[in-house]
Amino acid sequence: MIVAEATKTATGTSPIDQLHALVAVDMEAVDGLIHERMGSAVALIPDLARHLVDSGGKRLRPLLTLAAARLCGYRGVEHVKLGAAIEFIHTATLLHDDVVDASALRRGKSTANMVWGNKPSILVGDFLFSRAFQLMVDAGSMRVLDILASASAVIAEGEVMQLKSANNLATTKADYLQVVSAKTAALFAASAEAGATIAGASAELIDAMRDYGQNLGIAFQLIDDALDYSGRQAQMGKSVGDDFREAKVTLPVIVAYERADDEARRFWRRAIEVGPQHEADLKRAIFYVEETGAIRDTHARASHYVDEACRALAPLPDNELREALISTAEFCVGRGY
Amino acid sequence: MIVAEATKTATGTSPIDQLHALVAVDMEAVDGLIHERMGSAVALIPDLARHLVDSGGKRLRPLLTLAAARLCGYRGVEHVKLGAAIEFIHTATLLHDDVVDASALRRGKSTANMVWGNKPSILVGDFLFSRAFQLMVDAGSMRVLDILASASAVIAEGEVMQLKSANNLATTKADYLQVVSAKTAALFAASAEAGATIAGASAELIDAMRDYGQNLGIAFQLIDDALDYSGRQAQMGKSVGDDFREAKVTLPVIVAYERADDEARRFWRRAIEVGPQHEADLKRAIFYVEETGAIRDTHARASHYVDEACRALAPLPDNELREALISTAEFCVGRGY
Repeated sequence: MIVAEATKTATGTSPIDQLHALVAVDMEAVDGLIHERMGSAVALIPDLARHLVDSGGKRLRPLLTLAAARLCGYRGVEHVKLGAAIEFIHTATLLHDDVVDASALRRGKSTANMVWGNKPSILVGDFLFSRAFQLMVDAGSMRVLDILASASAVIAEGEVMQLKSANNLATTKADYLQVVSAKTAALFAASAEAGATIAGASAELIDAMRDYGQNLGIAFQLIDDALDYSGRQAQMGKSVGDDFREAKVTLPVIVAYERADDEARRFWRRAIEVGPQHEADLKRAIFYVEETGAIRDTHARASHYVDEACRALAPLPDNELREALISTAEFCVGRGY
Repeated sequence: MIVAEATKTATGTSPIDQLHALVAVDMEAVDGLIHERMGSAVALIPDLARHLVDSGGKRLRPLLTLAAARLCGYRGVEHVKLGAAIEFIHTATLLHDDVVDASALRRGKSTANMVWGNKPSILVGDFLFSRAFQLMVDAGSMRVLDILASASAVIAEGEVMQLKSANNLATTKADYLQVVSAKTAALFAASAEAGATIAGASAELIDAMRDYGQNLGIAFQLIDDALDYSGRQAQMGKSVGDDFREAKVTLPVIVAYERADDEARRFWRRAIEVGPQHEADLKRAIFYVEETGAIRDTHARASHYVDEACRALAPLPDNELREALISTAEFCVGRGY
């Protein structure tokens, strides 16, 4: 996630930085454990894993786990293992996603599949996924294992669903939201839920944390999909237009296509469904998603989910951790735009 | 696995069939559960999974789990979930292997990556892997989860190790055995160990079952690697020469290269390390592995591991299940040769 200068606070730190600061000791332990447990006698594994693990990701998902556990009054240390496990699941899905999408750039760096090839990326993804389950076993909670095994299955389902919507302008908003709920929001939800669960929180609080994570995850992906048409590559650290070039039908495209005149429809059909794409097509796509209000609408929808996320936190104790979770959600929708 | 006619018993059934018959009710339950739990609202997932799950594999790994559990006196039903979970892990690794190796044929059928492409194969593999952990959670044994999560990590390590030995004639027998122990034997070992563990067997019996599985797994892979140079494609249901074409350095190649004269060494270096391979190269490679005794030695080594596997079973009750496990191990080394 990119810190948009405009939304930084007077102290120069973003709400995410503030949330990090509130669980700094725990997060340091998560980082230590990540580096320890990605180790292997097969040197290629830590080499490749480090490429992604140390590439400046914000560790947003483990952050949710740590914050949820502490907010629910947890005094133990098992949440650290869960945080590391969740970052491994996330890293494994990124490795596989980049192979599936043949992506060249992530967080401003060449992707692992570009540096080492597809084979090690697939297999190291499998390794990290296995390590994640070993960490969960160490944490010792069967309920948390259930939450995260289920979330992993839902993520994979979402990724397969997404394949169907590529090159397909018949994709509906409902289809799209189903994909986003599965491929992105499920892990946000499970991260928060796992933290509350390991803390032994009540069913009400566990549900509240899951709802927060689920809504935040949807908002996060909506903003990500809007950013793909924003033209701010340097700030984002990923390639603007990736989704467009891969002919993914995200909300900005669905809305823009819905509101398109005949000429614009012909453009979208050629660019997304029929091909080929030309050099100037991305600029034209950006023009259309702006002109039709598709980007504005995507942001409005993200704001709605952020509101839902914040509302979900009502039953949680009113303290600085809860405040930071609320600010983080509000910050996510404003990032880079 | 292919039933070699010559080693069938007088009743026309192989030892594997006999082992199947001894746990027939349990195995039917495993099959039912496999088909139930590979289901998803995303139709492509069961379609693709079914392609592999119903392609005539012998379910050897779940068979070990079921037999181990019953041999250790288990009277419950949780081993069925573990059998299904283990078959899912195996299926997931096959899907990813076939993408990594760009394989075209498995068990006499087009591979999933050929039919549906690499993307769904990677993602459905991830889905089945997640489903495996859900099934293990349902089975409710943290010790078994530990065994299978660890085995999964070791398998992935073995697969990454194997990448290094491709195109590399400096691969030693020790390197090779390390890869085989990890990529193949670890799941055989874990399958047998999981069965004994869910049965609540003593540490001695659990260790015995794991040793049986580990040694059987090594023997199994040695025979598989010998078969790749056997020229009996129809019987095997896989493409003979796959390993050779992918320039994998398996034991037959290591031994043949070790014993090669200058001309044969030049051949191996071109065919395995430098390229290109020519049409007639596979025949020549088969000639060399036969002529140098590399195939015979590979079989001898497999027989050694089968002996170890059978010896490991000494502490187990002397009944028809143990007999069937011994016959199965002896049968594996004789298959298709």
